[in-house]
Formats: sequence, structure tokens, C-alpha cells
Amino acid sequence: MNVDSGAIARLGTLVGEIVDLRHAASLIGWDEHVFMPPGGVAVHGRMAATIQRIAHEKFTSAELGGALEDAAREATTLPPDSEPARLVRVTARDYDRAVRVPAEFVAEQAHVASAAHQAWKEARAQSSYAVFQPHFEKVVRLGQQYAAFFQPVAHPYDALIDIYEPGILTSEIQTIFDVLRPRQVELVRAIQDRPVEQAPFLKAGYDERDMLAFSTEVISAFGFDWTRGRQDKSAHPFAVPIGSDDVRMTTRFDNRYPFEMLFAAMHETGHALYEQGVSPRWARTLAGGGASQGVHESQSRMWENVIGRSRPFWQHFFPLAQQRFPSQLGGVTLDQFHRGINQVKRSLIRVEADEVTYNLHVMLRVEIEIALLTGAISTADAPAYWNEKIQEYLGIVPDTDANGILQDMHWSIGLFGYFATYTLGNLISVQLWETYKDGDPQWAERIQRGEFGPLREWLAQTLHQYGRSYQPRDLVMRITGRPVSTAPYLEYLESKYGELYGLSAAVRP
Amino acid sequence: MNVDSGAIARLGTLVGEIVDLRHAASLIGWDEHVFMPPGGVAVHGRMAATIQRIAHEKFTSAELGGALEDAAREATTLPPDSEPARLVRVTARDYDRAVRVPAEFVAEQAHVASAAHQAWKEARAQSSYAVFQPHFEKVVRLGQQYAAFFQPVAHPYDALIDIYEPGILTSEIQTIFDVLRPRQVELVRAIQDRPVEQAPFLKAGYDERDMLAFSTEVISAFGFDWTRGRQDKSAHPFAVPIGSDDVRMTTRFDNRYPFEMLFAAMHETGHALYEQGVSPRWARTLAGGGASQGVHESQSRMWENVIGRSRPFWQHFFPLAQQRFPSQLGGVTLDQFHRGINQVKRSLIRVEADEVTYNLHVMLRVEIEIALLTGAISTADAPAYWNEKIQEYLGIVPDTDANGILQDMHWSIGLFGYFATYTLGNLISVQLWETYKDGDPQWAERIQRGEFGPLREWLAQTLHQYGRSYQPRDLVMRITGRPVSTAPYLEYLESKYGELYGLSAAVRP
Repeated sequence: MNVDSGAIARLGTLVGEIVDLRHAASLIGWDEHVFMPPGGVAVHGRMAATIQRIAHEKFTSAELGGALEDAAREATTLPPDSEPARLVRVTARDYDRAVRVPAEFVAEQAHVASAAHQAWKEARAQSSYAVFQPHFEKVVRLGQQYAAFFQPVAHPYDALIDIYEPGILTSEIQTIFDVLRPRQVELVRAIQDRPVEQAPFLKAGYDERDMLAFSTEVISAFGFDWTRGRQDKSAHPFAVPIGSDDVRMTTRFDNRYPFEMLFAAMHETGHALYEQGVSPRWARTLAGGGASQGVHESQSRMWENVIGRSRPFWQHFFPLAQQRFPSQLGGVTLDQFHRGINQVKRSLIRVEADEVTYNLHVMLRVEIEIALLTGAISTADAPAYWNEKIQEYLGIVPDTDANGILQDMHWSIGLFGYFATYTLGNLISVQLWETYKDGDPQWAERIQRGEFGPLREWLAQTLHQYGRSYQPRDLVMRITGRPVSTAPYLEYLESKYGELYGLSAAVRP
Repeated sequence: MNVDSGAIARLGTLVGEIVDLRHAASLIGWDEHVFMPPGGVAVHGRMAATIQRIAHEKFTSAELGGALEDAAREATTLPPDSEPARLVRVTARDYDRAVRVPAEFVAEQAHVASAAHQAWKEARAQSSYAVFQPHFEKVVRLGQQYAAFFQPVAHPYDALIDIYEPGILTSEIQTIFDVLRPRQVELVRAIQDRPVEQAPFLKAGYDERDMLAFSTEVISAFGFDWTRGRQDKSAHPFAVPIGSDDVRMTTRFDNRYPFEMLFAAMHETGHALYEQGVSPRWARTLAGGGASQGVHESQSRMWENVIGRSRPFWQHFFPLAQQRFPSQLGGVTLDQFHRGINQVKRSLIRVEADEVTYNLHVMLRVEIEIALLTGAISTADAPAYWNEKIQEYLGIVPDTDANGILQDMHWSIGLFGYFATYTLGNLISVQLWETYKDGDPQWAERIQRGEFGPLREWLAQTLHQYGRSYQPRDLVMRITGRPVSTAPYLEYLESKYGELYGLSAAVRP
């Protein structure tokens, strides 16, 4: 910030310390998943708990509250859209959220999550919903209590979404779903009637080091800045910023799904580019990092799906892949490959879902969360509700609860209200992409040349640099000129998959 | 601790939080030297500074001071040698030290060290003492101020040694030096008159991966617990505990000195085994970790020198080394190899010094520190003083100040009072070793079989488990039945090197 003295600067000093502590907690978490020896579990747990507790105490302290009041007063003298004014607003918003939730509630939540996560692992292994249900019950009850802290809200679920997607309402999500649902269900059905083309080359034996080298080539071309980040291996891929100048992501290799390493690397690079693109002026402030989970997901999905599964992308990279993997891809055509990596399958499992089915998996979960939160259904009803919904949307029924309601870890760790951000990410990714294309008539040629600088720069300038200093809805409006919309995504889906599957115009607008 | 309630337990809760913060600072420091991308420098500096400041504030708080008073009162009802009583004593000692030093002084010290370290790097690169002198002047002045906080002390230098070697006095160090000096100078002179045997096989081309595999075999045999620690690469080898269940060490390979990787790994493993051996009952207390720098160094030097450069060790490992490195070591005999790794050279550089010359390098530094601290010499006199002393002890004179007074980074980062711990480590390593041998008549056969379990167990039982709960002098007395002594070390040196160099009995007692 350019404000070096006065109330806003004093607030900045207090907040800076909290940001330092949060970064330390992120580093501890990263280490835990990447390099920690098994013996380090307990000490990592204690370090993280102590640091998070101190950060929370300091953030909700009377000293910080007073400094915030003074800063808010000072901010009234500044243009509302000025950087310091935006910074004070985002700080006030976080502060308000933090002080509304009592420390004992946070402690109970951590306690419930710890037991629920253990129970969930056992429940999933045994495919026994009964093992998880009492814990799920507590998670739902905590969600209801949490929502009560934020009264009055139009809908109790608003308070839960708001954690991950500031300012987005349940009613907006429901409207979005109501538009997406019939069109996506219809598209799935149309594809289902088309013949299935096998793509055995995607599962031929690939060497891990070669695949890593190829994915490194791709993400370097995307523009990941290796001087301000790194990539290591972990059990599940993730990206975490230790500030915008040290962004860490992970990858993994599974020889059953060799290309997963590549697409997951593109995905995490999308998250990482966002963090690396946040302006240094937000360092040590609460305006650092991504605007929301949904906006973050728009970036990972843009690079993974919109770019990484597009034909122009593979016009450049497929010949390079063939050079690296001559025995596996030598006899495969670009079109075969492109169809292979965009195959639509009605899967029971969300994390295996493709672009066409993904939002349907999300809707089902959000609908269950809302029904549980409002008491429309009980946790006893949830598995049947799940199976009914997935049958309705995808025409398939889980053989077991492990492949149904027990498949995701989210609820077990207390993430309730999170799922919609995946769909928001899908929508925003395409909405941004269409806007970018409007401004760059050369977009296709560039991507066919493996040239991503202009896109990355455009994202950095229009989105990344602002960090959390604008709310998601304001960002999307500023950049695309309209609110988060379903039309671009549906058009993108129907056009891309209509072409790939040779569908009649009846399902293509 | 077994004391679950009462004043000592309440103190434990407050201290536990500080230990968590210090562990986090250690992890940040480790990461900085091992995996941090270049862009992460600033954020790492800020995280570490904030965490250290909070830890210091909490440790010197009135709340902790009150809890300590209550605990000390409670401890009077316990046997003085009981664990809780020892724990309260070590906590009180650390607290007393922390509160005597004003926060502004600590901040100034950090500030001076930061500039001094930069200046030192430049000074060493240019071999220009003038560049470093004004900063050195400040370091000395801060040392004098620091000593003043601890009045009354018998000698101002006592306050500085005490940071690294609790309870050891300047007068004791001087007495030790006065015994070691003439005998070690004499031994160096006697060796200098013997013909030099070249050992080109030590610098033949070795492959880094093969040397790493060999050093991993050795340190695994020593008993490093890989489930409670790890080894990575860094520019300079070091070991750092994130508690005793997550002990991290580093290594490096320089093809000019290929065996350095092996001996440095043994050295760091000595430190690591100490930390891994500390009893879990000291977790989250100030009695965790090693008793002092000197005692720590006794462990690294025991495994590196006393064991790792001994003939019985190589009776087991030399054939294995020959299998790994047939072209380099195939035609070399065990005795040639053993003499090669124990070659005595009068080096200008401390970190290249062997067992015979090492203490002489240390003495020279300690003598300069004492002379500067008491004002007997000024920083302007220091280079000449240095050159005179090294001429006296080793018969060599630095060609440049870079190879003389500017060679060590210690003073530039504010380490003043530290050097004597290396010599104490040497003495204690042999004193412990002789005690161990007295109790295990099979020691030589064991080591010839590559069997180190009994030694490691003995160290864990007699030394490691106690952590910081006894002072160094008490530990050495408990284990060996006498104070830190020069005799075992001098006998070890004169016997080992007398044999290696075929010296007459005149220099062998």
C-alpha cells in the first residue's frame, strides 16, 4: 500500500503479522503433504494449531477491532474504489466474519471434523453409510448453528456459500442450476446415444519421468514462474501460495491414468498463475490471494479444460507428445487424440467427471446440502436422495454408498457450502475466455503456436492483480460486462461436444 | 511431563506454545535453505521475524513470568533432581536470560548482523578487512553491551559463552587451552617433520549418486531413524530438529572433495541422533534438544571422527567402499586409505582442519574475542593479532585476510562466544568414547562388524534422553565421573597420530 502512515497503515501493521502467521501455516501444511517424515505428524499438528489460534486471537482482538474502526473512518475520506478503501472493506468483511463465530464453535468444529474424517475413511472403506451418519449429523448441525451466527440472511445456506464465494446468494445458485440442469441432462442423453470410440493409447504404458518432463514443458509454456514457485510430488495434487512470490504445487503419477498427471498439472498451474499474478501491493494484506474459490477454479479449469483439452492446443502439443511417446502415440491422429481426452462418460465419481457431466455432480450435492440444512430431509434420507438424483441426472445408480454419498471427503472435514464453487468456476472460466477471444482475433493461431503470453497477461491485468480487493461478482462484471452467466458455458459445451460427437443441431443452439 | 495439573502444568501450557512457534521458525529456516524458490526470500524473512518476535513477546510476558514464579514455588516441594524440578530450572534459566536482554537490543543486534553479514561477504570476496571492520566494531560493542546485562559475572566473556555453553566459565576454557596448546603445537611440529604421503584416490572422480548411496548406507548403519527425519541437499550441510520426531539434515557433493559428503553426513547424523534420542517427555518443553553446542558437537565429532575415521570402522566399510568404487579404490589398501582420511595438514582454513590442528584454530579465535571484548586489542589490531597467532600455533601465515581473519561467517551474524564449543565438543567426544569403551569390552569387534546399536543405545540412555534437563558439566560428570578433561583427548590424539605417523615415544605419553 502507498499509505504509509495514519490509521490504515496502523491497521496494515497489525494485519501483516496475521498474514505472516497464515503463510507459515500454509508452509507447514505444504510440508506435511510433501516432505514430512511420518514421525512429524504430531509436531506439525501442534505447530499448525498454535499458529492458527494465535492468528485468530490477534485478528479478533480489541486492538485490531479498534484499528479497523479508525481505518474505516479514514477510508471515508478516500474514493470508494481506491486501493486503500477496497483494502479496508475486505479487511472489515473478514473481521466481521471472524468475530461472529465464537472461538468455542471453531474448536468444536475442528474436533467434530477430526472424528468425522476418521469415520468417513472407515465408512468409505467399508461402504457403510451408518458409520458416517452420526458424524454427518453433527456436521449438518454445525452448519445450521454457523448459519445462525449470520442472521439475518435471505437463506441460511447463504452464510455457508459466503465463506467460499463472498456475496453469492443461494437464490442465484438455484437460478443458475435451473438453467444448466435440463440442457446438460439433454446433452448427456444425446451423447449417450452415440457410438463409443475406444482410446486405448491413453492408457498405454507411459514412463513417469517422460510424462513429468512433458507436463513441465506444457506448464512452463503456460508461464508458471519457476523462480517464484515449485512443483513436487504428493498423494493428491494441490496448489498453495506462501504469498504470491512462493507458490507451491504438487503432482502425482498413476500408471493406470498416465495423462492425469498432465491435466492435473495444468489445473494446478491455473491456480498457481492466479496467485503469482496477484499484485505485490497486496502483500501482507488480506487482499492477497484469489477472490474466491469459484474464481480460483475458473483459472484452473480454463487452463486445464478450455485450453488444455482444446484442439488448437493439441495442434501445437500433439506432435511434441508424439516425439516423446512414439510407441504409444505414433499411430494416433490428432483428432483421435482430441476425442480421446474429451470422452464423455457417465461416471458415478465426481473427480472422474468430464466437462459435460461435472455440473450435474455438483448440483446433486448442493441440493442435498440445502435440503439437509433447511431440514427438508434428514441425514437418514440422504443416501436415497443421492441415488435418486444421480439416476435422474445421469441415468446411473451407485452400486455402493462408497461410490455414492460417501465418495467425497468435503463433508467429513466440515466443508459444507463449498461444492457450488466448482460450477461457478466452470461458468466463469468460459465467460472470461469468450471475453478474451473477443479482444484477440489471433487467439487460435497463438494457441496453435503454443503461445500463451497474451492470455496470461490479459488474465493478470484484468483479474489476477486485483487479488481479493474486489468481490467475485464485481470482478466478473468489470471484466466481462455482465454477471456470472450460464449462456457462454452452455454454448461452449454444446458447440464443442456437438462437434466432437456429431450431434444434430437439435441439441445445438 | 507427568505433572498434569497445578502450576508446573500451567507453565507447560504457556511454554508449549512458544516451543511450537520455535519449531515453526526452524521449519521455515530449513525450507529456506533446502526448497525455497528464489522469490521466497522476502516472505520467509517476514514469517520468521514475526514468529520469533511473537515467541519472544510471549516468553518474556508478565503472564509467563507469573506462571514461572508459581511453578518455581511448586518445584520446591519436589526432589531437586526430579524431572519437573529440572524442567522448571531450565525454564527459569532461559527466562532469566531472555528478560535481561531488552527487545530493542535484540532488534539492533538483528539489524547490525544483517548489514555485517552483507559486508562480510563483500569483504571476503575482495579480501578487504577495511570493508568489514566498522561492522565488526559494532559486533564487538554489542558483545560488550550484552555482557553488561549479566553483571555481575567473573569475566565479561562468561556471559557470551553462556549462550552456547550454559555454566562454562572463561577461566575454565583458558585452563583447558593452556593444557592443549603446547601439546597440540608439539604434535603438529612432530608430524610436520614426517614425510608426506599422497592419497590421490581420495580425489579420483566419484559419482555423486554412488557417494550418496554409500553415505546413506553408513548413516543408516549408525542408526539414523528415517521415519523421524530426512536428508536433503543444501549449499552447506546442517541438521535442524523440528522436535525430536522430525529431525532434518542436509548434505552436499563437491567433486573436488568427494569424501566430504560422507564425513559431513556422519557429522550431521551425530547431531541428528542426539535430537532423535531426546525423550518424548521433553516434547513441547524447553528441556527438548541438546544440552549445549559443545555437547552437540561432541556427538557429531564422535560419529564423524572418533568412529568414522577409525581403523575398526573401515575394517568393515572399506571392502564395501571398494565394491562400490572398484576403479578408484580397488588397488588401495585399508592402511593407505585410513592414513589418507587422517592426513594432518597445516591449513589456513578452520573448516578444512583435521583433528590435530582443529583446536589450535579455535584457540586463536577465542583469544581474539576475549582480547577484543576486554579492550586489550582493538578491531584495527585484529588481523595482525590473527596472523601472529596462527604463525605461532601452526607455523603458517595467511596470504590474504580472506584466508585469515575474514574466513568465518560467525562474527558477521553476531555469533561471538561460540568458537570454544568446537573444542569442548572434541574433548567431550573422546571423554564419552573412553567411558563407553570401558563398559563394552567388545567395542572393537562390534565396530569391525559395522554394529553401532550398543553405542547408540548407550549414548541415548546416558546422554540423549535427558535433553537440556541437565547442564553440560553435570551431564559429563554423571556419565564419565569427572569434569570435562583434556587428558582423554590428548591421549587419543597422540596415540592415534603417533601410530599413523610413526612418531617416537618422545611425543607420545
